[in-house]
Amino acid sequence: MRRLARAALALAAGALLAGCAGSGAAPRGTGDLGVVIERAAGRVQVIDTTRRQVLATVPGLGDLSHASAVFSRDGRYAYVFGRDGGLTKVDILLARIDKRIVQAGNSIGGAISQDGRLVAAQNYEPGGVKVFDADTLELLADIPASYGDGSRRSKVVGLADAPGQRFVFSLFDAGEIWVADLTHPRQPVVTKFRDIGAQPYDGLVTPDGRHYLAGLFGEDGVALVDLWRPEQGARKILAGYGRGQEKLPVFKMPHLRGWAVAGRQAYLPAVGRHEVLVVDTATWQETARIKVAGQPVFVIARPDGRQVWVNFAFPDNGRVQVIDTLEQKVVKTLEPGRAVLHLEFTPRGEAVWMSSRDDHRVVVHDTATFARLAELPADSPSGIFFTSRAARTGF
Amino acid sequence: MRRLARAALALAAGALLAGCAGSGAAPRGTGDLGVVIERAAGRVQVIDTTRRQVLATVPGLGDLSHASAVFSRDGRYAYVFGRDGGLTKVDILLARIDKRIVQAGNSIGGAISQDGRLVAAQNYEPGGVKVFDADTLELLADIPASYGDGSRRSKVVGLADAPGQRFVFSLFDAGEIWVADLTHPRQPVVTKFRDIGAQPYDGLVTPDGRHYLAGLFGEDGVALVDLWRPEQGARKILAGYGRGQEKLPVFKMPHLRGWAVAGRQAYLPAVGRHEVLVVDTATWQETARIKVAGQPVFVIARPDGRQVWVNFAFPDNGRVQVIDTLEQKVVKTLEPGRAVLHLEFTPRGEAVWMSSRDDHRVVVHDTATFARLAELPADSPSGIFFTSRAARTGF
Repeated sequence: MRRLARAALALAAGALLAGCAGSGAAPRGTGDLGVVIERAAGRVQVIDTTRRQVLATVPGLGDLSHASAVFSRDGRYAYVFGRDGGLTKVDILLARIDKRIVQAGNSIGGAISQDGRLVAAQNYEPGGVKVFDADTLELLADIPASYGDGSRRSKVVGLADAPGQRFVFSLFDAGEIWVADLTHPRQPVVTKFRDIGAQPYDGLVTPDGRHYLAGLFGEDGVALVDLWRPEQGARKILAGYGRGQEKLPVFKMPHLRGWAVAGRQAYLPAVGRHEVLVVDTATWQETARIKVAGQPVFVIARPDGRQVWVNFAFPDNGRVQVIDTLEQKVVKTLEPGRAVLHLEFTPRGEAVWMSSRDDHRVVVHDTATFARLAELPADSPSGIFFTSRAARTGF
Repeated sequence: MRRLARAALALAAGALLAGCAGSGAAPRGTGDLGVVIERAAGRVQVIDTTRRQVLATVPGLGDLSHASAVFSRDGRYAYVFGRDGGLTKVDILLARIDKRIVQAGNSIGGAISQDGRLVAAQNYEPGGVKVFDADTLELLADIPASYGDGSRRSKVVGLADAPGQRFVFSLFDAGEIWVADLTHPRQPVVTKFRDIGAQPYDGLVTPDGRHYLAGLFGEDGVALVDLWRPEQGARKILAGYGRGQEKLPVFKMPHLRGWAVAGRQAYLPAVGRHEVLVVDTATWQETARIKVAGQPVFVIARPDGRQVWVNFAFPDNGRVQVIDTLEQKVVKTLEPGRAVLHLEFTPRGEAVWMSSRDDHRVVVHDTATFARLAELPADSPSGIFFTSRAARTGF
């Protein structure tokens, strides 16, 4: 039934979208489009956040477990990074693959440059970062994550774009943070911050593009680089942040990319504990801890910062909680479905889309009333990504 | 020469864009499009911020002095508010007028609701706010700005959208701030803040949608409403902000909509003085004043907040200055052309577009090197507006 519905939608939408290429159908804007990763099927759905519909599906993207996407600055193309090293440029207007390459053996996401001309992929195997022309996917720069005596290469994690055509990323095995300036794409200039801490496992750039933070797996604490003052080097903050002495069982390491910065506070998923940490972004000191329903995975601020939404690791991954940042407490608990893997806000935050992998659906909720606005079929959906990301830094 | 070039461009682009409606030309995304107001000609240019080209021109928009624009959430339509009360819905993909109404005798801009379904216009004559269906431009709500004994109507200024389907605006003649909740578009619920100060002349909502500020013309100071805590009412801040006791000649009142919020600081154009004021957004206390080359008009932060760009009133309106927010000083002075009326940053801030009315051109500069990247012909250009505004609050 679900598959039929999806197939029908895909056909209808395929015609609708493809129409613009020749049949005389009207063109459409791309500001309200997005993609939903159908991880098990190696497919993405193209969705419309205004009508809350699936417009089409695009198959053939390979292994999409832990897949993520970035968008061209015109909003037409999604660059989907697969776990198998596949990099697929999807034309979401025509609902078809524009280009696809397999650029590594084992990859874990990517980013797009400030000017939209460069797409970067971070790789485990071989460890490093590759930079491609966003139009052609031609390889422009290969930055091997060599460290120590140069004979070894590190897994690369926490890749993010920063202003000034820079990409910032962490070397898990080396304990280093690198800033690559791609102003001249074929001659990247790499600045290396060494001894930043043991085993950085993920990282993010703050929404203003100023700070890069990398969570540490090998010790407690977070490494911080002020990209406005790189001469100050990397420093360690939040010495109490991590698995702690008790070494609690961690069912799933939280995604740092989800870290929420709302006003002057950052909201961080505690590691192992059923808590969200609140951190002052001026002092980088912890100011509060908020009890939540499980081990947080994504902690994401509504665009206006008034709410922070949290999903959880197994066995609490059927719930999503909403923190009111003015009251600093949980004000709502939702049960969107089994295995809620990701959530994405509409650009101005009036609605949120959440994926329920095991109920094979995406649900849309009003963030003011919490009412369910729509329910869409999807095959084991994971990541949800909207074109509005193209206009933002650090996504 | 310039007109020929423009005409040629318009033809080529008209074909290109219209092509999608039937000729088989490829569709295109809308994330990198925008409009430039050609004020004297009653026309808008459709521009492409990736190729830095004029794609087409759309005439027939009436009196565009002081005109502004907002965008549909799909990025396809620009709603252009003319001084003559005209509201024109421009299809920027097909480069043609989709719908046009004259909704008042004398109007001064508008806004679009959080969900993109409602467009609101603020009017001087008759004084009030009208709310229209964004698809059809059908009138849904008419909110007359009646005050006192109800026999008089005030000019409305400083209209801005806020989360929760709200529009916030100021009554110049009444000294009031109103918050209209359009959750039910045909039954607006209006909350009125009275005695907020003498003659509010413009206002803005902060980028996070939390605070509404109205500058006062009849006295020094700024009226502030915390939209997260409306029960606290309006309060007066910056008692020293305004024309001051000396009552300096003011060649042009600054545009508050341009107020820059960068990190924790807001950068305000001083009134009359050659200064930009720096204000802490937590305490709303003035923390510094930065000397600039003239009476500031627009004070606009680059999206990452590292730079604040300032243009000026006559006779200094041929210059633009750049403030580094880390060093809190002017680091660059540019001379983009005669009568620089407006500037707009690309969504991620790598470039800025500036209009030179009297040199009939728009210039594009790199914000890192300050190098000129492009120069485009335009007939007395004023406002520049990019589709990325559709994804932002308070624009």
